[in-house]
Amino acid sequence: MTHSGKFIVVEGLEGAGKSTAIAHIKHYLHQHGIEPKCTREPGGTPLAEALRDLVKQLHSNEQVAPQTELLLMYAARMQLLTNVILPALTAGSWVLADRHDMSSRAYQGGGRQLDEQFIQQLRQAVLGELKPDLTLYLDIDPAIGLERARQRGELDRIEQEQLAFFQRTRQKYLQIAATEPNIAVIDASQPLLQVQQQLTTALNQALGF
Amino acid sequence: MTHSGKFIVVEGLEGAGKSTAIAHIKHYLHQHGIEPKCTREPGGTPLAEALRDLVKQLHSNEQVAPQTELLLMYAARMQLLTNVILPALTAGSWVLADRHDMSSRAYQGGGRQLDEQFIQQLRQAVLGELKPDLTLYLDIDPAIGLERARQRGELDRIEQEQLAFFQRTRQKYLQIAATEPNIAVIDASQPLLQVQQQLTTALNQALGF
Repeated sequence: MTHSGKFIVVEGLEGAGKSTAIAHIKHYLHQHGIEPKCTREPGGTPLAEALRDLVKQLHSNEQVAPQTELLLMYAARMQLLTNVILPALTAGSWVLADRHDMSSRAYQGGGRQLDEQFIQQLRQAVLGELKPDLTLYLDIDPAIGLERARQRGELDRIEQEQLAFFQRTRQKYLQIAATEPNIAVIDASQPLLQVQQQLTTALNQALGF
Repeated sequence: MTHSGKFIVVEGLEGAGKSTAIAHIKHYLHQHGIEPKCTREPGGTPLAEALRDLVKQLHSNEQVAPQTELLLMYAARMQLLTNVILPALTAGSWVLADRHDMSSRAYQGGGRQLDEQFIQQLRQAVLGELKPDLTLYLDIDPAIGLERARQRGELDRIEQEQLAFFQRTRQKYLQIAATEPNIAVIDASQPLLQVQQQLTTALNQALGF
């Protein structure tokens, strides 16, 4: 099994159903005898989780500069990659990630409209040649997703952005999915069973099971 | 006084005498009727101070990847620049900084030997055209500086590095000082009075008082 692990990423807006999708994908992998290492971003190591708290919490005394937010996302990603994702993949394990690099491109690049060139430089420096084997992007109208997220409880600092922010984020997600390989767009507005069927189909196609 | 503020930075290894030098510079500026805004890096805003704590503390469960450390330094710098340094300079105030960008170049570039090109890209994205009007670099043999720092108490995660790390850091400091403008090298191994005289001379020359 050495070096046979694959890197699977689940992406999408708040309320798109990432947690439910991840549970389905874990079940799918278990049925094929695979126990993936599960990660979430930002987070996944003690230091990266501390950064997650800092970047998501409301700072009553100060505005978080958009570029500070971007740098913190990549700092947390660097830490998770170095200490968790790369060792797991090198050991032949599978990695199942709740968000990864596409989130920064969509939220900070699309939503916050930060400079594309700077993001590309950060990506190159932090990720090098690493690319997910499969990204499952759960697409949803942000008006629907945010309503779902709101029903779950308090919104964090980023979730409190205006609808236009999430519309820009979704457009960037869709643009990346349309132009880059190994990204499956799942219609997350469908009933649960259909979403799960679409996930299974995408996994079968990508993984050859 | 609008737009007449200057940006003065004090740099140097642990135990070089930065705090004493800053007290002297503040006194000097006061004598010329100037009340500078004082900053320290990493830190200087609530979020940046939280990042300072995270980057300096020992993480018993994990190694801090050198690139994570670099990204956190620039995240904290971005936050301080946006919320403190740039507004102060724009308002015509003086800024007196305990460490700034030269520290990252010396510690992470020299000490940790991180990729120069990546550091340059981060600098360009975070700093843009901003440059200190004067940097006072307090030069000291790290063996002497570390002994002084040790006598002050517990050493933090970065201060616990080996002597060779600080020797590389010093070499990078000296290399930058030798090739870039507006950096005064102060021999910090001298007795206090002579260090203060050298500081005063450098300030007079740079500021035209």
